[in-house]
Amino acid sequence: MSASPYKQLEQEFRRLHAFRGALALLRWDAAVMMPRGSADVRGEQLAALETEHHALLTAPRITRLLDRAQANTQGLADWQIANLHEMRRQRDHAIATPVTLVSRLTKAASRAESRWLEARAQGKFEAFAPYLEEVVHLVRDKAALLGQALNLAPYDALVDEFSPGLTTADIDAMFKALSRRLPSLIREAIAVQETRPLLPLTGKFPAGKQRALAVEVMKSVGFPFERGRLDESEQPFTEGVPGDIRVTTRFDPNDIFSGLLGALHETGHAMYDLGLPQDWRDQPVGRDRGMALEESQSLLIEMMVCRSRPFVRYVQPLLAKHFGASGPEWDVENVYSHLTRVRRGLIRVDADELTYPLHIMLRYELEKQLLSGELAVRDLAEAWSAGMEQRLGIRPANDVEGCLQDIHWAVGSFGYFPSYALGAVIAAQLYESLRAEVQELDEQLARGEFSGLLGWLRTNVHGLGAKVPVQDLLKGATGKPLSAVSFVRYVEAKYLESTASIESTASSAAA
Amino acid sequence: MSASPYKQLEQEFRRLHAFRGALALLRWDAAVMMPRGSADVRGEQLAALETEHHALLTAPRITRLLDRAQANTQGLADWQIANLHEMRRQRDHAIATPVTLVSRLTKAASRAESRWLEARAQGKFEAFAPYLEEVVHLVRDKAALLGQALNLAPYDALVDEFSPGLTTADIDAMFKALSRRLPSLIREAIAVQETRPLLPLTGKFPAGKQRALAVEVMKSVGFPFERGRLDESEQPFTEGVPGDIRVTTRFDPNDIFSGLLGALHETGHAMYDLGLPQDWRDQPVGRDRGMALEESQSLLIEMMVCRSRPFVRYVQPLLAKHFGASGPEWDVENVYSHLTRVRRGLIRVDADELTYPLHIMLRYELEKQLLSGELAVRDLAEAWSAGMEQRLGIRPANDVEGCLQDIHWAVGSFGYFPSYALGAVIAAQLYESLRAEVQELDEQLARGEFSGLLGWLRTNVHGLGAKVPVQDLLKGATGKPLSAVSFVRYVEAKYLESTASIESTASSAAA
Repeated sequence: MSASPYKQLEQEFRRLHAFRGALALLRWDAAVMMPRGSADVRGEQLAALETEHHALLTAPRITRLLDRAQANTQGLADWQIANLHEMRRQRDHAIATPVTLVSRLTKAASRAESRWLEARAQGKFEAFAPYLEEVVHLVRDKAALLGQALNLAPYDALVDEFSPGLTTADIDAMFKALSRRLPSLIREAIAVQETRPLLPLTGKFPAGKQRALAVEVMKSVGFPFERGRLDESEQPFTEGVPGDIRVTTRFDPNDIFSGLLGALHETGHAMYDLGLPQDWRDQPVGRDRGMALEESQSLLIEMMVCRSRPFVRYVQPLLAKHFGASGPEWDVENVYSHLTRVRRGLIRVDADELTYPLHIMLRYELEKQLLSGELAVRDLAEAWSAGMEQRLGIRPANDVEGCLQDIHWAVGSFGYFPSYALGAVIAAQLYESLRAEVQELDEQLARGEFSGLLGWLRTNVHGLGAKVPVQDLLKGATGKPLSAVSFVRYVEAKYLESTASIESTASSAAA
Repeated sequence: MSASPYKQLEQEFRRLHAFRGALALLRWDAAVMMPRGSADVRGEQLAALETEHHALLTAPRITRLLDRAQANTQGLADWQIANLHEMRRQRDHAIATPVTLVSRLTKAASRAESRWLEARAQGKFEAFAPYLEEVVHLVRDKAALLGQALNLAPYDALVDEFSPGLTTADIDAMFKALSRRLPSLIREAIAVQETRPLLPLTGKFPAGKQRALAVEVMKSVGFPFERGRLDESEQPFTEGVPGDIRVTTRFDPNDIFSGLLGALHETGHAMYDLGLPQDWRDQPVGRDRGMALEESQSLLIEMMVCRSRPFVRYVQPLLAKHFGASGPEWDVENVYSHLTRVRRGLIRVDADELTYPLHIMLRYELEKQLLSGELAVRDLAEAWSAGMEQRLGIRPANDVEGCLQDIHWAVGSFGYFPSYALGAVIAAQLYESLRAEVQELDEQLARGEFSGLLGWLRTNVHGLGAKVPVQDLLKGATGKPLSAVSFVRYVEAKYLESTASIESTASSAAA
């Protein structure tokens, strides 16, 4: 074979991409379609494929080809050089973790996930604790090995897997800035909101109709149903590869919005994945730029775009069409008040933009303590409750609304949670620039037109794939390095707006 | 590592089993869940996993371990020695076909499959012929190579892939016996049935209610929904592995039985797979004993058990429960007449027990002629029509109800069709012994109890896995080698029963 080392690497990573796609489908199926009792069998399949993926990625041949290709990059395009860098990054991460550890972790996570589901059903953390403990031990080993290989602190090495280019220092700086402002802002926002009337949005909203509404809105956003699906699962998620993207949500018949917003959050992820460069689609450089940026795209759509007055103007007639919603409680201003209601609640996925980062701070601290051994798994439930009380002034009545609410730790995803808060901060920074540059954005959104919004995101975020580090991407898109300034500005403006500004908006809407 | 060669092989084949399970899920999803536009992405995933499976199975390490393990089998149990034999068989089949031929055939089959779909839509065989020709050429090459490696005639080598241990000699003997009796029996059966009144089973039978009925009956049979699913697809099929078995059917709102019987046919496959020895479940010896035996299990359930008066007695109250079915047309005798109606038809999948083998004989002869070159692909449509006229006295009006009706040849499955007829013959032979040995079987079935039936099948068929050749299995279960004698006896008794015997059955039912 006379193909260049680089071309041979492209071929190898094309195969790895196909493996990743197969793994994604196995996971999607496990959460959406798989019979309960088949978890063991699926665990074996996932472990076999992940082990093989790992073996292919860490084969000596890959290292040799990388050495040769990186020694002479003449004639390669910029994106190909970036591709080599991403290939090397993937290989370095993989080779740091021995295959036996990968396979033990996969099996332990698969067991823990089904025990987590059972423990949730029974409301008992203790039944799940031994399985979580096994996962924690294995993740601790992995973090130590990864850290050594990448010359990072163990926890930073885990963060780097999910959000390359971001570190504990970035996370700490962000949380410091947010800690300074959010607690008082939450109080102020609640005080402001209490002065305004809020009519309840009651009724029965059958799942079938909610689904029809979600599909209609997703189509407006541009989700391609001929190459993707919307299904229901315990927790909303996005899985798959560009070309076959699968989004899930959960419909609550008593809540007209939670299922829709869950679907739109995931659609934000999906639109990012679908906007990645088509020509690089089966190469490392064609992937997303990590979970923090992924989350910025879902939060930008859900929180900034869809919890806004222009979006409510677009969706209001659809509520009438699908549910026959009519009456003063369905006025734009009342619906908007519901979508932006600030409440100190126990459940992260139900949290508003202001309290959400506090949920993440708690998890960030607890997971660092679990990994360092400072906190024993058996003490997690109590530490969780104490942390909630300290941060939000409320205590969970049981483990289901406490430390059993998230799947992440069960499946071994430590170092993942910070990406949610980083995502919110990045989203605000991007949205500030986007609003300054896209003409008549609000008017477009009020008509259900998302092309201006997505055009900007394609140019400045999606279309870059993993070609540049996240900090460079942000600087290119916004002219500034990552900081929480835009986020604080955004939430202050949104949640402390004066009555005068509301009235002017309301009257301009009526005009 | 100090594990014995045999133990190392078990480990290798455990991994291959997990790959097969993943491939099964990818195929199931493609037929049941996948968005239409994602076929190319799925094709890449399947190709990557299949290529890797082939590479793992044909690695020099496997050959070395097999040589060492088979050189010294002291201390191995019978089933482990049989397992080695099956491992060797799989490896021999895989290594006989070069990976380049496998990949050319996969691509040609994928092209031919989509052209077949188009040709069906347009009703034109000619548009499909060049693509089928390419597949025929490649299958011919494969058969020659396989035959050489396995010391079999080329066509026998293809049959051996699907139904190991059965040969052209077995198939010819079976078809000779069937040819002697079936044509006259079909005439006689139709004449007998024409003398009896038949009230039509009209009505609208919504898919949701049909599904509820199918689920209830499948549960009675013993299908474990906690480790399996029932879904809908274009054509019914069974996919997956024991531990996660997925069955599909197709519900026709104008036909109360086709969806149920499709589901029960597939449940027959599923119960075989679920009854395979649990301890060997991830080893070659723990697999089914080929497609002929697989088909015997689906036909035994669908044709022999479920198209019987005892089953109709069990299901009749369920028709009332799920569809409010009442009136003389829903009497046991009238429903039974519908389920056993003999008609000379053009479509194989709609054929009854008597005409079905004639459909297979035609395909068997034509596919052997295509592979030998005796019949040119361009002459297939005419040869098909002539063969139908000769065998069943009817001619297709177009290619869609002629040689375009089956997908098998398009996807390269030559040597598969005989397993359908072999399956019917094996089923009858097993059922004859089973009825002699299970006390009060009809009474059990009439109460919806399938444990006696399945107990016998578990002991005599399912529980043996692939430990013994199919001929030995049959001899052990029935005391006789494979022959069509039981099948002929069964269909004669069922389709030529005298009016007197019907009346006595009817009165004993009323008693």
